[in-house]
Amino acid sequence: MHSFEISIPDSGLETALQNKIDRKTKPLGALGLLEKTAKKIGLVQQTLTPQLNNPQMLVFAGDHGAAKAGVSAYPQDVTWQMVENFLAGGAAINVFARQNGLGLSVVDAGVAHDFGQRTGLIDAKVAAGTANYIEQAAMTPAQCAQAIQNGAAIVRQLAAKGCNVVGFGEMGIGNTASASLLTHCLTGLPLAECVGRGTGLDDAGLARKQDLLEQALIRYRNAGGNNDAGAVLAEFGGFEIATMVGAMLAAAEAKMVLLIDGFIVGSAALIASRLAPALLDYCVFCHRSAEAGHRTQLLAMGAEPLLDLGLRLGEGTGAALAYPLVQSAVSFLNEMASFESAGVSDKE
Amino acid sequence: MHSFEISIPDSGLETALQNKIDRKTKPLGALGLLEKTAKKIGLVQQTLTPQLNNPQMLVFAGDHGAAKAGVSAYPQDVTWQMVENFLAGGAAINVFARQNGLGLSVVDAGVAHDFGQRTGLIDAKVAAGTANYIEQAAMTPAQCAQAIQNGAAIVRQLAAKGCNVVGFGEMGIGNTASASLLTHCLTGLPLAECVGRGTGLDDAGLARKQDLLEQALIRYRNAGGNNDAGAVLAEFGGFEIATMVGAMLAAAEAKMVLLIDGFIVGSAALIASRLAPALLDYCVFCHRSAEAGHRTQLLAMGAEPLLDLGLRLGEGTGAALAYPLVQSAVSFLNEMASFESAGVSDKE
Repeated sequence: MHSFEISIPDSGLETALQNKIDRKTKPLGALGLLEKTAKKIGLVQQTLTPQLNNPQMLVFAGDHGAAKAGVSAYPQDVTWQMVENFLAGGAAINVFARQNGLGLSVVDAGVAHDFGQRTGLIDAKVAAGTANYIEQAAMTPAQCAQAIQNGAAIVRQLAAKGCNVVGFGEMGIGNTASASLLTHCLTGLPLAECVGRGTGLDDAGLARKQDLLEQALIRYRNAGGNNDAGAVLAEFGGFEIATMVGAMLAAAEAKMVLLIDGFIVGSAALIASRLAPALLDYCVFCHRSAEAGHRTQLLAMGAEPLLDLGLRLGEGTGAALAYPLVQSAVSFLNEMASFESAGVSDKE
Repeated sequence: MHSFEISIPDSGLETALQNKIDRKTKPLGALGLLEKTAKKIGLVQQTLTPQLNNPQMLVFAGDHGAAKAGVSAYPQDVTWQMVENFLAGGAAINVFARQNGLGLSVVDAGVAHDFGQRTGLIDAKVAAGTANYIEQAAMTPAQCAQAIQNGAAIVRQLAAKGCNVVGFGEMGIGNTASASLLTHCLTGLPLAECVGRGTGLDDAGLARKQDLLEQALIRYRNAGGNNDAGAVLAEFGGFEIATMVGAMLAAAEAKMVLLIDGFIVGSAALIASRLAPALLDYCVFCHRSAEAGHRTQLLAMGAEPLLDLGLRLGEGTGAALAYPLVQSAVSFLNEMASFESAGVSDKE
């Protein structure tokens, strides 16, 4: 595993930040979760006047060997077809990123398709899809390390361009199944609580998905597999998840604000935070997905997400939709008057 | 009571709207509450391609005779001081409206202060604060009718300027107490479930508020008072609430989209929807407040709000913060590709 220098933000500013928030012309605590978000971002940036600069969404795409075994309601070709949709600007994430002023790049982390050189597409393909983890490890340790390195390099380029807030999204038919296995292995929660309908499995499809994932776990346990975060990432991860893990670690190392989307991005955050627990101090959790298992995954990270809209689309849509709220957290901290400056009487 | 012509939107377009939503490149239902919001706005505007034009926030301010009896943690002067803060651009609602591209006007519906002529302030003062409802009706029937007429006139001017989406906010020390009484009378829920800490009462203050409101109710019942929406509005309402009721009725009549904020704005929506039930078809409920009683008020209206951030600030902040999500609902409907147009395979 590469080493990343991720430190807990110095809490020396916490009292000053809280005091600044409390002197704003509003009842104490009346902006709820926005107040916690403002404080978090102030600590990440170590300032009472944080700024969000050159915000970027990264959508990581990869294919999964297990997809052909029947863990998804959609055919595997939808992964590359949706990448084409992203590049053409027609997907939900394009619409929401445009609306909210986020730059958008798509990362081919391991799609089973040859895109050639394309504007807006970053080539970080480790291989044309992972192996089928029902039969063998999804990737070799070397592939996993390569994916992490790729992700870190992409984020370091963004940081060099002055970006200090990065949103994470993903596309990969079959990747809720991967996320379920990772969540199960890292939280110890029963597999059934970590598995959901993904893009829309019916009851029979859901039962089949659970059976297949159970088989994969039995194979791994029988081979002596443990719950080490790096090991389970290579065993069950997708290339898009492993590449995100590297990207997240590099983003926290660069003291950026990380916008965490739903269940699959959350599984990458879970892995990354096991490798470097301080990473959670840099994360803004953007939404609670309708996907079964996301609620428990969030609890495991102590996360309190901004949105709860019943979304289960992926792509980073929850992060892009929540971004205006993140901006609001920063803007109230910077722009609101205080009781003193506005001449408003405080509580009696 | 004035009469407003508010019709249930023609549901003829519903199937076409749902079909358009379902052919977008995403799993069925994967945009959750945004899909319901898109359909609602399509029906309000009777089109498959809705547009949000010249969005405006209206912040209605008024004083309450009961405030001096001790139903709030803040002194009554804070009402006019906060109006000054709005006019100076330093309050939370200013920050969020600016950020999200909403125009903002403040309505003096009955503040106990002389502001003179001011830019950004609409003079619709019925009187310098209501009477104390613990001892007598808060307003006369004529005052209540005047407030409703004032609110309607303000919204009709916005509609004439091409505004088709209006957000409602309020300011008035003591107005959570009014909202509690209105919610209790109209939903039949126990008073204790409708009363909360407002701007931050401690336990003793909360008990005192409940006692005072109980006294007001006993007085009203002993005088033969009933639960007619218009009657309780005059009895317990604030001028800002009555003016909002008129504004909401006129907005629904003009087929605008109404952005409903928290507990106090919700109490106006509750009154308005009892006077004209079809009004709810024009409302987007923007957030669930941390104020006790808001949850039950929302249930009484069958409302499913967009945000749940633990906000309890008022001013329309929840509406302004949720507005980007309303825009997202419209933008995905208009801008996303369909499976057919993007060449993406649908579910197998």
